[in-house]
Amino acid sequence: MSYGNSITIDAPFADTVERVRDKLQAEGFGVLTEIDMQATLSEKIGKELDAFVIVGACNPDLAGRALDAEPQIGVLLPCNVVVRQAGGDVIVEAMDPGLMATIAGTESVRPIADEARRLVSNALERLGAATT
Amino acid sequence: MSYGNSITIDAPFADTVERVRDKLQAEGFGVLTEIDMQATLSEKIGKELDAFVIVGACNPDLAGRALDAEPQIGVLLPCNVVVRQAGGDVIVEAMDPGLMATIAGTESVRPIADEARRLVSNALERLGAATT
Repeated sequence: MSYGNSITIDAPFADTVERVRDKLQAEGFGVLTEIDMQATLSEKIGKELDAFVIVGACNPDLAGRALDAEPQIGVLLPCNVVVRQAGGDVIVEAMDPGLMATIAGTESVRPIADEARRLVSNALERLGAATT
Repeated sequence: MSYGNSITIDAPFADTVERVRDKLQAEGFGVLTEIDMQATLSEKIGKELDAFVIVGACNPDLAGRALDAEPQIGVLLPCNVVVRQAGGDVIVEAMDPGLMATIAGTESVRPIADEARRLVSNALERLGAATT
């Protein structure tokens, strides 16, 4: 099983986080959370981590339909998109929304997960296109 | 594959959310996010949903070790615990941290995921014990 999409971007970290938010919003996702893991782990346990942000994105229409079909899907919401520094590159990777359908095993969740996956892929594709 | 732990609680919703936070913290998890899905879906698309909160919990030591072993694990962080109203009951369900190991397929992630699962189970067990 794979995590989902991953792309490598040649652009500054903070700009990339901003662009990730923009591209997700353009595909109908709201950004519900943003976790700065670098700051969190530094503060809590003094661990040094390269820049690492987890953006929690949620398409309200798809989330609502998924929760109607299977309320337990909530444990896999929102859809996380990680932006992390790796040497001179910035890697952006998104959770595969297909995980929801795989774990749910509920047939009605599949088309919703497929649609979410399509929109997340669009967002990452446009992010890649905008920076190359 | 299962979502993870689920327990049913006979207590008011808001109290349960508070207790979930307490029990998670007692097991070494910080609460990094709290998403009110009921309010979010109402505001964004006018959808009516029963009370539904997603608490994002993170044990910094385990998260740090998991990210060292496999940075892509970030798309599955934090560990979500859902508190939702279902009729007269409140259901609390947690993402199975074992998912991280299943998806990673990296052997060194397994003991970290197992430890996270143990701590999440403890939190839910104590939550159940405190309300019955």
